[in-house]
This record gives sequence, structure tokens and C-alpha cells, in this order.
Amino acid sequence: MSYPVNIAVDCMGGDDDAFFVLPGLLLTLKKYPNIKLQLYGDEEIIRSRISKYKALEQASQIIHCDTYVKMDEKPSVAIKNGRGKSSIWVAIEALKQGNADFMISAGNTGALMAMATLILKTISKIQRPAIAAIWPTINGETIVLDIGATIGFNKKQLIDFSILGASMAQVILDVKQPTLSLLNIGEEEIKGLDEIKSSHEMLKSTEYFFRYKGFIEGNQIGRGFSDVVVTDGFTGNIALKTAEGTASQISQYFKDSINRSIMAKVGYIFAANAFRSLKEKMNPSRLNGGVFLGLNGIVIKSHGKTDPIGFSSAVDLGIHMHKAALIDKIKSNIKLTEKEVNID
Amino acid sequence: MSYPVNIAVDCMGGDDDAFFVLPGLLLTLKKYPNIKLQLYGDEEIIRSRISKYKALEQASQIIHCDTYVKMDEKPSVAIKNGRGKSSIWVAIEALKQGNADFMISAGNTGALMAMATLILKTISKIQRPAIAAIWPTINGETIVLDIGATIGFNKKQLIDFSILGASMAQVILDVKQPTLSLLNIGEEEIKGLDEIKSSHEMLKSTEYFFRYKGFIEGNQIGRGFSDVVVTDGFTGNIALKTAEGTASQISQYFKDSINRSIMAKVGYIFAANAFRSLKEKMNPSRLNGGVFLGLNGIVIKSHGKTDPIGFSSAVDLGIHMHKAALIDKIKSNIKLTEKEVNID
Repeated sequence: MSYPVNIAVDCMGGDDDAFFVLPGLLLTLKKYPNIKLQLYGDEEIIRSRISKYKALEQASQIIHCDTYVKMDEKPSVAIKNGRGKSSIWVAIEALKQGNADFMISAGNTGALMAMATLILKTISKIQRPAIAAIWPTINGETIVLDIGATIGFNKKQLIDFSILGASMAQVILDVKQPTLSLLNIGEEEIKGLDEIKSSHEMLKSTEYFFRYKGFIEGNQIGRGFSDVVVTDGFTGNIALKTAEGTASQISQYFKDSINRSIMAKVGYIFAANAFRSLKEKMNPSRLNGGVFLGLNGIVIKSHGKTDPIGFSSAVDLGIHMHKAALIDKIKSNIKLTEKEVNID
Repeated sequence: MSYPVNIAVDCMGGDDDAFFVLPGLLLTLKKYPNIKLQLYGDEEIIRSRISKYKALEQASQIIHCDTYVKMDEKPSVAIKNGRGKSSIWVAIEALKQGNADFMISAGNTGALMAMATLILKTISKIQRPAIAAIWPTINGETIVLDIGATIGFNKKQLIDFSILGASMAQVILDVKQPTLSLLNIGEEEIKGLDEIKSSHEMLKSTEYFFRYKGFIEGNQIGRGFSDVVVTDGFTGNIALKTAEGTASQISQYFKDSINRSIMAKVGYIFAANAFRSLKEKMNPSRLNGGVFLGLNGIVIKSHGKTDPIGFSSAVDLGIHMHKAALIDKIKSNIKLTEKEVNID
């Protein structure tokens, strides 16, 4: 790349006073020395923190914002208080104006989504934006969406999400024709799944740029059954959180079992390298970063509770998607799909 | 107990030709020598298998049934083909007639639920039955329902499920006033959750025989946040399956990491005892058995893919619930609740 990547960073969002943001950016800067950073937030706070990272200071421009969105603020209140002046709002504005290539925040998800939608608008033909997560599987990674922006199943939205998720898979997983499935439960005759069933019929009956593999159950996500798994935001959020909870529960069991005896501790020392790779696989920092899909611009939501490595990996994700021209890919995939099927 | 417990067993349902059923019953018989077993299914098959288990043969009565429900048969087809003669149907009829104390099957869940509902009917005031699972947590166990009988959120059903799940918790977890929560996602202002919200208001505003703790997110189930977690069958099924999938995914990571080097294998030998306890905790057999709640009779659904230990633990669960008079407890809790609130 001859042009630098311009990144708009909300420096105020995140738990623990967002202390991980600057050291996280430094990690990314070491990997990509060519990036340019715009740091949005309280100038005094940012200046006091950045002084010890000279390289980062040189690559950054600080844009003071009078206010910021609190982590527990309701989206409607955040918009009322922060319109035009909060760090999230002003950073997204920069993206909208073409002054940044993507925007990242570890702040309040609901407020970030509400502001991003208001400012950037959805891509033409896309009804509502979704949040996509990268889910680690036995044989790689799967993109799961929506994980929290929508509630309830709606055929048009599920088809939209399929196009969005499969476009992201092309970019992130580097596959030309991603495989895709719809999350469902086993009972076939149960009632109330009409929207999922009709999406299924529509996905089955048409040729798309992705390959539709049918329904998937919750236990198959982690097996890497398909590159993309589509569901509504309520179900996706519960599935993701339940998987995270189960992983941390098992970590706890593992620690307890190691601490039970001296013999076990000795064994652990012998197997330390092996367990390091296990720990690495289960590390939530590794795949941190929810991606807002369907908007006219790339917005990345880092987990609020993360560390410099986790924040940096979310920034890297944004760089990757910008370089691969995700938004253009989505737009051309929408056109491609329109020729085949009228999804309105 | 001076009276023997009479158990109606469907011997035809389950994967791998249900070979685990008889050795599973033998394990339970060793623990509870006083039980009486009614074995429903193809007499020839049962006789050929039971001949090597003399003790089991003596405690059992074989009831020949002309047909049985296939694992992938649709409930409506199963009822059409199996009404009055399939092993599941005839076994549930015995329960209905008072000739058995509970019924158990590892067969087709949808058909089992449809037949059980048709024959036993729901308990007065309960709109629809639910399936409850026992979910292992860091500090014990939590009862989660519904895990697959219903779709969609309905206030009346969520209150019913609260009464049913809390009654089961009193019996299984041996707590007088169980704690209970509603599964939800974090975003507060998102639309479409009206039924969950109004159930929440109703649970919050009234005194029940359980203690309502509010909303819970997916990652909190495994932390043992409450004794009971209530949701609809679609969400509950996806949460449960996703947790199972995550556990098996991590098992796979664990095996891979141990097999990577000789050092790791040596370490594993030292820590073998500790890992045995870990494996035991993660063993799905340990807590096998979905319980159909809300019907006039106790019906237990064992996992179709299980082993003798898993089947036996599901039978033990039925014995436990019968001895604790679960159905009477549910009925008296419904009366108790009616005094406080009109849930119709």
C-alpha cells in the first residue's frame, strides 16, 4: 500500500477507563508503521497518556471532544447529549467525510450502533445493519451474524445478513465462494419458524455468490460447518455469550483440577508448552472485534473489557477490511444478488 | 420407600439400536434393587438382549409392542403410525393408567412430546409443556427451560415455565426458595422484547415461592447465577447446543495440545488424576436427561446418543422426581401462585 491507512479512534470508550487503547494502538503501529491515527476524546487525558509512547505520538493527531458516551448510557440519551460533540459521534463524522478509512471504539455498543446508523446510513438495499463476530472453530474461523443489533427473524433481513456475512468471509477468510448456513433447532415440525423457513427456501432455490448449506444447530458452529452462520441478533447474542461463558467455565474447571495436587502441578509444568497453545486458542483477545456490517463505512466495536493485545487485534481487523475494500465488495455483491433475486 | 418404583421403559428409542438401554437399567437396579421395570418394545429383541442380565430379567416385565417410532419420523407421522401400538405410546398409556410411576425414552423427542401431551394432557392451568435440562455450573447445577418444546416468547408461558422450573429445582436441587432469572440480551433499548419485558415486570412485582433475580445473559448461566433460567424453546435449545458444542470443541483442543509432544504426554500422566476429575465434570453422561414438565405424569427424555451410564443417570433422575412427588409439588405451587397473581 502506498497510501497510509487513516484510522479514527474513540479513545474514551471501554471499561477500566479505556487504558488499553493507546498501548493497543502502539502494537498495531509496530506491525503497520504506515498508519495515521486520529485520536478522539479529552485532549488532556490523551496527552497525559500518550507522552510515554513517542512513536505513537508522532503518528497521531489528537482531536479534542467536549464529551463522551458513558458505558451504561441509553442510546437515545447518548444521542441527545452527544450529538455533534461526543468522541464517538465526531470520529464517525470523520469517517463519513472521507477523512478516515474506518472507525473503532470499545465503548457503548448500543450508542455506537445508533450513532453510526444515523450518520453513515445503511448501504442502499440493506434494511438494517448487523453486528458480525468472528467465531473460533476446530478448523479455523466462522463469521456469525447478527450478534445483537436486531431482534426477531425477518426474511428480508436474513437474506441481507447472508450477503453481508458472505462478503466479509470473502475478505477475512479469503474464500471466493463462502459456505453459509442458517441457525435453527432440530425439531422440524414445530411451529413459529415461518420466517426462517421461508429464508431457507429462498436461499436454497437461488444461485448466490456464496454456497448455502442449509440449517445448522448450535453445536455445529464450533465444528466449522460453514464459513458464515446467519441468525437474528437476539439468538446470535445468546449463542455467543453462552459459548464465551462455557469456555470460561471450563477454564475454571481446568485451573481447579491443576491446583488439586502437587502431581498435577508437576504435570502441568511438563505440559506447559502444550497448554500455552491451548490457552492461546481459548484467549478471547485473539479474535476481539465485532464488525458493524451494512453501513456506508467500516465501524469496529472492540470488546469493552479487553487488553492492549485485544484492542490491537480489533484495529488490525479494520485495517484488513479496509485494504480489502469490504464496502465495495458488499455493494458489488448486492448488485450481483439483485440480478438473481428480488429481495425487497 | 416401602413401595417399589414402577418404571415404564421404551426399549426401542435411541441411536445405535438403543443397545445402552438394558445395561443402563442394570446399573440403576444395582443402586435401587427395589425397582420394577416394564420394558416396552419388540419382545424378541428384548428377550435376546436381556438373557445375559439375570437380575434385570427378574425385575422386569416385557410388554410386546407391534411397532416403534423411528428416530427421524415426524411427530404427526409417528402418531398416525404408532397410535395405540408403538412402544412409546403404550409405555405412556401405562403411566396414564397409574401402572407406572414415570416413563423414560431415548427416542424421537418430537414424537415423545406429541404423544405424551396427547395422552397425559397438561396440568390444569398450564398452557404448554416444556423440556427442562440440568445445566452444570461452576458451583453446582442450574435448571434451564424450555430447551425445545416451544417457539417464541409468550408471557403466560414464561410464567408457567417459572413455576414448573422452580418446582423442579425444589426437588432436584433441594432448595426451599429457588432463585430464578429470565434469559435476555444486554441491549436495553432494543425493540421486540415486549413479551420478555412484561414477564419480567410480572415476576418482579409479585411474591412467589421462588425468588426472581431479573435478567441473565448467556455467559452467566454457567456461573450458577440462579437455580432456574427461563426462556423459550428456540433460544434455550440454541443455548444448550452451543454450550455442548463449545465443550466438545475445547476437549478437542485439549487432546490436540496433549498429543503435540512427548513432554506434554509425560505431563498428562503426572496430572492424570486431576484430568480425570476434569473429564468427569465435562462428561455429558453425568447430567443426561431432559424432563418434560407441565404434564400429568413424569416423562424423561434421555439423549439418543448416550451410553449405559448416561441412560442410567436419566432413570435415576426419574426415580428421584417420583419419590419427591414432583407432580404434586407442581400442582400445589400452581395453587400457591394463583392466590398471588392471575396468570391467565
